[in-house]
Parts: sequence; structure tokens; C-alpha cells
Amino acid sequence: MPTARTRVKRHPERGEYERAVIDAILDEALICHVGFVVDGQPFVIPTIHARDEDTLYLHGSPGSRMLRTIKDGLDVCVTVTLLDGLVLARSVYNHSMNYCSVVVLGRARELTGRDEKLHAMERVVEHVVPGRWADARQPNEAEIKGTTILALALDEASAKVRSGLPSDDEEDLSFPVWAGVIPLELVALTPIADEGIASSPPLYASSYERPNSVKTEEPAGAS
Amino acid sequence: MPTARTRVKRHPERGEYERAVIDAILDEALICHVGFVVDGQPFVIPTIHARDEDTLYLHGSPGSRMLRTIKDGLDVCVTVTLLDGLVLARSVYNHSMNYCSVVVLGRARELTGRDEKLHAMERVVEHVVPGRWADARQPNEAEIKGTTILALALDEASAKVRSGLPSDDEEDLSFPVWAGVIPLELVALTPIADEGIASSPPLYASSYERPNSVKTEEPAGAS
Repeated sequence: MPTARTRVKRHPERGEYERAVIDAILDEALICHVGFVVDGQPFVIPTIHARDEDTLYLHGSPGSRMLRTIKDGLDVCVTVTLLDGLVLARSVYNHSMNYCSVVVLGRARELTGRDEKLHAMERVVEHVVPGRWADARQPNEAEIKGTTILALALDEASAKVRSGLPSDDEEDLSFPVWAGVIPLELVALTPIADEGIASSPPLYASSYERPNSVKTEEPAGAS
Repeated sequence: MPTARTRVKRHPERGEYERAVIDAILDEALICHVGFVVDGQPFVIPTIHARDEDTLYLHGSPGSRMLRTIKDGLDVCVTVTLLDGLVLARSVYNHSMNYCSVVVLGRARELTGRDEKLHAMERVVEHVVPGRWADARQPNEAEIKGTTILALALDEASAKVRSGLPSDDEEDLSFPVWAGVIPLELVALTPIADEGIASSPPLYASSYERPNSVKTEEPAGAS
């Protein structure tokens, strides 16, 4: 699975090439960062994605520079990062973060068929808020046309995971300072209703949570 | 402040060029995504940053492809994104996310002086966990040498903010579905002590929270 371009060079022990791990990270993350090049200058833009089997959809408005540029067939790098915790070692040098990330390289194609676009739009909405698609007012033909979805094959992808407790050098273990991990979690707060809404929020809004992709707080001994 | 390259082209009403907003977003975010180009291929890598007045520091290990590549003087794009909420409109088409993002373009230089490197390391640690620097075992000369810090001037930067309630079309307001915002927040959980640590975590760990950069849940009417 890893090519020369996606093989993890630093801390190769943190590389995770298994598709299950890659898929879980992509499925948990709400946004991705898309990198592309215009006249030699890199641009990195956050956008919404969704995975559909072996395909990664990227969503955006047809007018955006990113989507206009990618449509022309440029190479992209899509990176997804989940932050899981802050690692406080005894030494400054061994401080770290617990995280999961995925890097996907490839060339994105624009979806053009009406039905494949509608299918991808459903995947994107269901990726962000499972259960929402069926409830909301469905896209009309103008809105389907007015939405740009790019598709990127998950052929060249790699994951990187740092988890667990700090990894101090032996001689630092007696240094008199607290050491450990501050776990971080993205949580949903109480939904705020729009003006004119008197009903209670549906369960998928009031009990919103992300799937937990990769357990990273267990001691793993990585630095 | 905005150049032709950083001017927000889509939804220009979401562009925020004020340095105060840019600084606040950079200061709240724990990680950034750095884009750079190798042989025409874009790469996007997550890393830790810290702002020091008009300079953005990027931290990493000297062996990493990213830092080795950037050191050679390539152009970079550093993007920081804070996710604030999911915007559930009545129509699928008007679903959105509340977020703040900053894009910085420029050419990074590697810090070489011992003292400027040590100063930048302190800024990075204090950016992530304010109060930690003075407590932890200070870097020795080998560790200072073994750390690579890049500096990027905040000359060419722009911010984008989407906040507030959904923005449905007039004719959708009577559609019978709940609409509103699910606020999202990155929260710190109870610290987990490393093996051999019997003391209580310091206040900066047990009461850890990020500064709240930009209020985005107030209705702003943007789509």
C-alpha cells in the first residue's frame, strides 16, 4: 500500500498502512486540508470530505479557486488530522501530541453525472450528521448543478498515529515534575435552534458525537 | 494586508484581514497544516506552531521531509482551522460549518542561532501548554541542536470566519424540519499521569483550556 511518496519517513513505527485505520480516521474527521499547486505556489484549504468505499469525496462551491484548480487535473494532497491529547514529558524535548493523521495523494476528478453527484452529496451530509439527509429539504436540479464534488481514489494513502504516555529518557525519570497526557476531545454542545424553530432538536443533533476511530490514550511507548 | 494571493475569492464577506483576528485564530489553534511542493507534487503535513509577534514558528524534527524541504527555501502555505459548529439548514444545499481559518503564505527560514532557537522552543511549549516551560527539564545543548524551528513572517495572511445560524432561502423557512447549529468545542479531559508519577497534575494541566479566539455562535447572517 505505501508508495515511496506516502511511506512515513520520520518515526516509521508510527506509520499505519492498514486500510481499516485509514478509513476510520477519514470517517471520524469532520474536515480535511487539501493541498494543491498554482504556478509553483502551494495552497492549503480546509474543506468537507466523505469516504465512499475506496473513494474520497471533496465538497465545495464551483466558484472556489481550489475546486476550479483541481478540476483542471492537478495533483492534490489531502490531509486529515485528529488531535487526541497533549503529551507532557519530564523534558521539554520529549513533549509531543497524540494524534492520528492520514495523507492521501492523487489526482481528483470532478463528478459530472447527476446521480453520482446526488449520491456523493448524500454521503457528505451523512458523514457530517448521520440521519440528516432524509430529514432536510432535498436538493433540486439547480442545486445539484450548483454543487461541485471531486472524487479522489484512496490508492495512495498512509496513516500516522502517536498514542500513549510520554517517552522520557531513563535519566529524566527522576526529574521532579508531573508528567502525563492531557486527553483532548471534540464535543458537541447543546444545539441552538434557528429563529422560528419551536420543535426540539432531533436525536442526531441533541446526542451528536463522532465515531471514535482509533484509541490513542493507551500506553504505546512511542515517543 | 491582503495580496492578490490571499484575498478571499469565495464569500468575500467572510474574509477578515484584521491582524487581531488572524493572531487570535493562530494563538488558539494547537496545530497547523503546512503545504509545500516537491517536484510539482503538493504535500500537506500537520505540525505544531506558535506565534511570536509578527513571526510564525513551525516546529519539527530535523529529519522530517517537510523541514528538510522547507529549509531549502521553498514557498509554503500554512493553514490553521478551528471548527466551531455544524450548521443544519432546512435545505441540504444550505448546510454549512461554522469555523475560523487562517492562511499564511511565505518563505520560511530556519533558525540557526542557539538563543533564537531556545526562545522559539519556549514560545512553542508555552503556546501549547502555558506555564509548562518553567516546570519541565530544560533543553540541553544537544537537544537545542537537534530541534529544527522554521520562522515565517506574517506578511501575507488572511482569515476567514463563518459564524451564526443557518441561512435558508425564504421559501424554505416553512419546511417542517429542525434547523440550527450544533456547537463544537475541543475540551480537555482529566489528565492521565505517567507511570511513576504520584503527584497531582499542575493547574495548567487539570484546568487546561484553549483561549477562545473568535465568538462564532452569534447570528451573523452569513451562509
